Amino acid sequence: MFTGETKIRVRYGETDKMGYCYYGNYPEYFEAARSDVFRNSGCSYRELEEMGYIMPVISLTVNYKKPAHYDDLLTIKVYVKKRPEIKMHFEYETYNEAGELLNTGTTTLCFVNTKTGRPSLPPQRFQDILDKYFD
Amino acid sequence: MFTGETKIRVRYGETDKMGYCYYGNYPEYFEAARSDVFRNSGCSYRELEEMGYIMPVISLTVNYKKPAHYDDLLTIKVYVKKRPEIKMHFEYETYNEAGELLNTGTTTLCFVNTKTGRPSLPPQRFQDILDKYFD
Amino acid sequence: MFTGETKIRVRYGETDKMGYCYYGNYPEYFEAARSDVFRNSGCSYRELEEMGYIMPVISLTVNYKKPAHYDDLLTIKVYVKKRPEIKMHFEYETYNEAGELLNTGTTTLCFVNTKTGRPSLPPQRFQDILDKYFD
Amino acid sequence: MFTGETKIRVRYGETDKMGYCYYGNYPEYFEAARSDVFRNSGCSYRELEEMGYIMPVISLTVNYKKPAHYDDLLTIKVYVKKRPEIKMHFEYETYNEAGELLNTGTTTLCFVNTKTGRPSLPPQRFQDILDKYFD
Repeated sequence: MFTGETKIRVRYGETDKMGYCYYGNYPEYFEAARSDVFRNSGCSYRELEEMGYIMPVISLTVNYKKPAHYDDLLTIKVYVKKRPEIKMHFEYETYNEAGELLNTGTTTLCFVNTKTGRPSLPPQRFQDILDKYFD
Repeated sequence: MFTGETKIRVRYGETDKMGYCYYGNYPEYFEAARSDVFRNSGCSYRELEEMGYIMPVISLTVNYKKPAHYDDLLTIKVYVKKRPEIKMHFEYETYNEAGELLNTGTTTLCFVNTKTGRPSLPPQRFQDILDKYFD
Repeated sequence: MFTGETKIRVRYGETDKMGYCYYGNYPEYFEAARSDVFRNSGCSYRELEEMGYIMPVISLTVNYKKPAHYDDLLTIKVYVKKRPEIKMHFEYETYNEAGELLNTGTTTLCFVNTKTGRPSLPPQRFQDILDKYFD
Repeated sequence: MFTGETKIRVRYGETDKMGYCYYGNYPEYFEAARSDVFRNSGCSYRELEEMGYIMPVISLTVNYKKPAHYDDLLTIKVYVKKRPEIKMHFEYETYNEAGELLNTGTTTLCFVNTKTGRPSLPPQRFQDILDKYFD
């Protein structure tokens, strides 16, 4: 399993007039979290792009249980449970400092080779890293 | 059926370095679209809040088919196919100017009475409006 | 003078827990407004980029007088009072539906030729358009 | 002097199609930075609000020198050089990991007592903290 977590503090501008962290911020939080997981694996998403790959998002789901508030320090846990091939599926859990589960989410991304513009397996360097995480 | 559509032009700051409209903008676009549908029904979401109701989002899904680009004038179509009770379920379709379907999405929201802090049926005034749309 | 105006409705996610439109949204509103002014002139900013020019922002100021609220339909007025050379200076005024002036702002942008990566005069096609607005 | 710094990593969704961190993100970055300075002083902005004060922004300036890019880890330095009375003036400097100064900015905020709705001196508890920083 390819996994990790990241801390995000809710910014003032990310709250809405209900006083909650706006529901539309979580896709960006999830992206920050998976970005950290890539970086910590030894192959950052920035490097993937430099190698000629982009990863558009194909699908997103979020299930909201409790709201976050301004200045809350959130923990986003990321799980990749299945070895990615052309697609890479991420699961997310967002917790507040009290350890309460605020929401869960998923995203599916696709590797695209920017030279061909077509879906593709990830580059060899990233495959080698995945070998460490998956049988 | 409770339905409508809204036009949204993709802002420069809403693009990302891939040159696409960032995937995380669509929840906000969907919210703008459902906000227009409420306003056009004769009971704006702002008025709902003034009557003592808020509508937190419980779930979100988006399926991305094609990207939007800077300056694209998008049409977001909104459908509420089932009469809302405590929950209100919205479906969305995003089209570009060429009429291509870029993505589809759903959100489920919950009416919450701010006096009790608890889920609730919508206020009578909005119920009366719903009578026009649903048998 | 090169001028115009655009309408922007404040989105729910653009409010903050004070109940106001977050101060950090106005740079994006200003960008949407100047984008409309370009488009209406007959040379959209998108076309400028396709001709090989980008316009990074060099400076920004905003003076906030009154807040905007959720669902307010704002009018952003844009003024370019001096014929742009390498730099283009914009002034903005934001009004609410009651005609109250909410804030004023300025941005200075620079034409950059993407081939050379260097500041540059705008392309001839845009110069010809400017001839209509400035002596 | 009341001062501090904060680290912010540029998110993918914060880039634009030029490949730069969008100019409109910096007001939010500055807010995150001043929020950290308050928290580190022993009186968080959240606590100020709980004591019945809000701090709307009155003015903003940013001077952009160089762009930031995706995944850059920025350092935002914050300086309050003059003891705040009704207004509090912040200066900002944004640096990238190479130590290059990317931009400078300022914001002026105003203490508002939410009971009266009027500008006000900050609460005594925050005054006591300021005593440590200013003669």
